[in-house]
Amino acid sequence: MTKPDQDIRALRWDPAGLRVLDQRLLPAHEQWLQLDSAAAVAGAIRDMAVRGAPAIGIAAAYGVALSARTHAGLGAEERRAAIEADMEVLRASRPTAVNLFWALDRMRRCVAEQAADPEAVLREAHAILAEDVAQNLQMAEMGADLIQPGSAVLTHCNTGSLATGGHGTALGVIRSAWRAQRLRAVFATETRPWLQGARLTVWELARDGIPVTLITDSAAASTLRDEAIRWVIVGADRIAANGDVANKIGTYSLAVLARQHGARFMVVAPSGTVDMGLACGADIPIEFRDPLEIWRATAAASLPAGVTVRNPSFDVTPAELVDALVTECGVIENPDKSSMAKVFGGRR
Amino acid sequence: MTKPDQDIRALRWDPAGLRVLDQRLLPAHEQWLQLDSAAAVAGAIRDMAVRGAPAIGIAAAYGVALSARTHAGLGAEERRAAIEADMEVLRASRPTAVNLFWALDRMRRCVAEQAADPEAVLREAHAILAEDVAQNLQMAEMGADLIQPGSAVLTHCNTGSLATGGHGTALGVIRSAWRAQRLRAVFATETRPWLQGARLTVWELARDGIPVTLITDSAAASTLRDEAIRWVIVGADRIAANGDVANKIGTYSLAVLARQHGARFMVVAPSGTVDMGLACGADIPIEFRDPLEIWRATAAASLPAGVTVRNPSFDVTPAELVDALVTECGVIENPDKSSMAKVFGGRR
Repeated sequence: MTKPDQDIRALRWDPAGLRVLDQRLLPAHEQWLQLDSAAAVAGAIRDMAVRGAPAIGIAAAYGVALSARTHAGLGAEERRAAIEADMEVLRASRPTAVNLFWALDRMRRCVAEQAADPEAVLREAHAILAEDVAQNLQMAEMGADLIQPGSAVLTHCNTGSLATGGHGTALGVIRSAWRAQRLRAVFATETRPWLQGARLTVWELARDGIPVTLITDSAAASTLRDEAIRWVIVGADRIAANGDVANKIGTYSLAVLARQHGARFMVVAPSGTVDMGLACGADIPIEFRDPLEIWRATAAASLPAGVTVRNPSFDVTPAELVDALVTECGVIENPDKSSMAKVFGGRR
Repeated sequence: MTKPDQDIRALRWDPAGLRVLDQRLLPAHEQWLQLDSAAAVAGAIRDMAVRGAPAIGIAAAYGVALSARTHAGLGAEERRAAIEADMEVLRASRPTAVNLFWALDRMRRCVAEQAADPEAVLREAHAILAEDVAQNLQMAEMGADLIQPGSAVLTHCNTGSLATGGHGTALGVIRSAWRAQRLRAVFATETRPWLQGARLTVWELARDGIPVTLITDSAAASTLRDEAIRWVIVGADRIAANGDVANKIGTYSLAVLARQHGARFMVVAPSGTVDMGLACGADIPIEFRDPLEIWRATAAASLPAGVTVRNPSFDVTPAELVDALVTECGVIENPDKSSMAKVFGGRR
């Protein structure tokens, strides 16, 4: 028996506040941060101690719970204003993953309806976490069912327990497919510059006893060809109304390469990732991060004159390259504006 | 006026032997190694203090010159046997770049014809170096002529002065095209795991005053789309008789992505890179290197149980994705078996 993945929970509430497993230090160090304010949560999101679209949303929800606790002694109006200000700080922490805004909107409604009662607000954050895990387990079953037994699969970035409330999105599908004995082999890209694949996905799979082969991002093309990969399986940070998918930089490249090599391309994300307010991927704001995230690897002191570093943290994969979009609402094959509207039309 | 690139020479002969600029330490440190034996040269090639297909060939030629000097005191038969043994050590240093074998074959003929006279053998190594630089300048002119003024170009790995006798192959084309004011922008991939792009190409272009934008390998797809790249320009380690190209891992990915985005794909390499003895790319031996080259970046002590690292150093790009093959013999558009045979038919 493999060790159950339920062991890995990177976000835990305890009486002192939110405990998060610092993902900047894995796999070399397993170190927990104790966050006791909304500002501390926002900092942890911005600096990527917490990362992964669903985990960012959950952490932000707990940030609001911390805010409600911090400001519990204030009068009703000041309390609401102080929590609102904290939510603005949380909202500004990362721009691309829509789960952050989705979770904050839900928490705002709860704050209003429950008169910012700290216990009620905390219960809402717990509910967001619990629903995320439940949705991941649902998606994992549906995604695994799409995979033919004996398949080799490839994933990008980290979309596992560390990126979510638990189990994971794309990596949840891989976990469940492995347990259902459908997988011949799992390949993980290292995912530069932050190495979520090499540092986090490999760590999770090793803990679960699931064998994995690590490759550089640029070895994906020859690996798809030489290892006859059947599915490329990824998460998402935001999905537009036409099915275009923003996800970790390099996802778009993998989608093109999958199509070229006859592999299928699966996106796994909770419905909170869908943003029906954006017509297409071109409208999704893409975060550009610090050049040093890339340049640091050279070990040179500073960037020479005349050298620029372009560090987009995400790219957009057009819907026509997506073979299957898995959310907790079901599987949409070849998503487009019309099939997306049918499933998510009531939202915005 | 930009500083002339002629300043960058990573391979220099002096009375004590071969001096090589240690490419493992750039750009943080500019440190020269003094190599005084064939075995030392072979070690420098294996450990990548010297890298780049043409530079490997040139270094190996000097390795034979060092061997001839070392064994000059022996009788004719023993001398030839000792040099032959040294050539075997050099031959075993790296498997993929054919320039190594091409240079050793040429040096073997010289050794035989000149009775292993150290001065004559050294002159042959000097000739190989000088011819490489001359060919690079020729190729650079021809390649630059293919580029429409105002183009943005993208290159992979390092194919500049550091990878050759001087000026470079693909980077030589970019140098010359920049001087001819044909380029709007130059993008360089970092080229994991060894970071030849981030460490070496950026260093060379900064020294020449040519502005460059560094990206991760996996940002190439969105950069091709968002920056309207016109040409992807790369070198080669071995080219088969049908025009298939083995080059640094990730090249194949870029060729697929270039075709997808309407960019053209140019391969620049001296004719010594062509191996008419191999029918197609599938016959080219691909070197797999140490998993630690990749894993080291995680800062974790050791590879967890169940984790494999696949580290192919090269991949093969099918000829049908190559729009222009530039050698000193001329430009072959859309190379295939027949056009390759016309130009290189006399070789093997």
